[in-house]
Amino acid sequence: MQKTVAAPGSNHMMKIADSREARGIIRTGEYTGHTAGIAPDFVQGNLCILPREAAQEFAAFCQRNPKPCPVIGMGSPGDPALPDLGHIDIRTDIPRYRVFKDGQLVDEPTDIRKYWSDDLVTFIIGCSFSFELPMLQEGIHLQHVARNTTVPMYRTSIDCVPAGRFKGKMVVSMRPLSPADAIRAVQITSRFPAVHGAPVHLGLPEAIGITDIMRPDFGDPPEVSAGQLPVFWGCGVTPQVAIEAARPSICITHKPGSMLITDKKNSALAAL
Amino acid sequence: MQKTVAAPGSNHMMKIADSREARGIIRTGEYTGHTAGIAPDFVQGNLCILPREAAQEFAAFCQRNPKPCPVIGMGSPGDPALPDLGHIDIRTDIPRYRVFKDGQLVDEPTDIRKYWSDDLVTFIIGCSFSFELPMLQEGIHLQHVARNTTVPMYRTSIDCVPAGRFKGKMVVSMRPLSPADAIRAVQITSRFPAVHGAPVHLGLPEAIGITDIMRPDFGDPPEVSAGQLPVFWGCGVTPQVAIEAARPSICITHKPGSMLITDKKNSALAAL
Repeated sequence: MQKTVAAPGSNHMMKIADSREARGIIRTGEYTGHTAGIAPDFVQGNLCILPREAAQEFAAFCQRNPKPCPVIGMGSPGDPALPDLGHIDIRTDIPRYRVFKDGQLVDEPTDIRKYWSDDLVTFIIGCSFSFELPMLQEGIHLQHVARNTTVPMYRTSIDCVPAGRFKGKMVVSMRPLSPADAIRAVQITSRFPAVHGAPVHLGLPEAIGITDIMRPDFGDPPEVSAGQLPVFWGCGVTPQVAIEAARPSICITHKPGSMLITDKKNSALAAL
Repeated sequence: MQKTVAAPGSNHMMKIADSREARGIIRTGEYTGHTAGIAPDFVQGNLCILPREAAQEFAAFCQRNPKPCPVIGMGSPGDPALPDLGHIDIRTDIPRYRVFKDGQLVDEPTDIRKYWSDDLVTFIIGCSFSFELPMLQEGIHLQHVARNTTVPMYRTSIDCVPAGRFKGKMVVSMRPLSPADAIRAVQITSRFPAVHGAPVHLGLPEAIGITDIMRPDFGDPPEVSAGQLPVFWGCGVTPQVAIEAARPSICITHKPGSMLITDKKNSALAAL
């Protein structure tokens, strides 16, 4: 029983500044759309739920690859709460989920109560929304935000450090910036190690296996102006690609764009 | 009466770790060479001495252009001491000086006691030696250090913010770095705002009016490898160029490479 919400409802959600209020509406199933722009001062996170037998290996994979896989929340086995991120029930508090069995997408429900079990472990991975806000606040132009498109993402030739069955290439997001903005962006995002941190690369896409920045593997093609450099950050799609390849018996993620809204302020993630 | 010192003496100087010991030898006139590598833990500075009537304008020029002109010491009119930088007599404590009258080089003495007057004001400008050491300590390869050449420097199309008679284009130094090292270098040098701080530009030399990075305006041509980006920092030659153009009645600088060794540790300049 999925409810979809018409444009007026979505517009209403965009005006909600409080994370608890937004999550309360999502919990009822009334809102099932994207979370970009909702409660913008608060940290949003990517979801990965895995069976206990795979969870420790996945935790090690994230620990070894903090730039693409920064863990900002981890549940106890069987416990749907994430008390350090807010009063959260991970079974209901995301607008729309994706359920994979043996690597195959089998469902896109608005809650996962019927899939939950004592065997499941929740991971919340930091997201670039948290560092884009401080960049925008300093006047840095982000083309995908201005054009309301999805940031372009690319599979690279950079190997992640493997952990058991979890391995693969790093996926990166790209923001074209003027050289001065690129330098400022390194400074700003260095303050946010919990949400991908500093760029992993800039200026020479071919050096990390990207042959055409106008043809991203995920997201929308960018608009790149003369005098801009491509600047690349580790991307939260990296763990999703590693999980897909590992084909665990069950895996539950958020539907791309429909993320967990936490009660943690973005500013609280600043390292200094 | 200038004494020059043979190679054994120079090699001896290179082994001196203590700033006061090095400055004591320089004060006697016994050592008149370059200071790179001497007492490497201590801040070295560029010298500009100007008549009082030009000094306040020059102070404003530096204040408005902190990246190329970071002031780390300023004397009282007529006072050759710089107590916050050490027990210094600026008339004797630099290996070799340059004296300009109305913009013309008239002398290269080893002390300036005969030129000193109550009308003169000393400025010490930070130098990139202080931020190169922490880059080297983190394993970043600097081609001009490895090859024992002078860092390449370029006149750019970037206008300095003028202050009275002092104006002109920014001069930058350039270090070719891999993209990953460029990102790390932004982080490291951002900690040192008192010695040029973060880069002013990277990746696209033509955007700041540099047509050929292999033909620097000052210093030696660089060795640039495939996969490296040119990274540009504000350079202490900028105030020298502005002073030359302003043609004050008298100006005394250090001879390039023969700088003031202070008692301040490089690490003390770190902002965080």
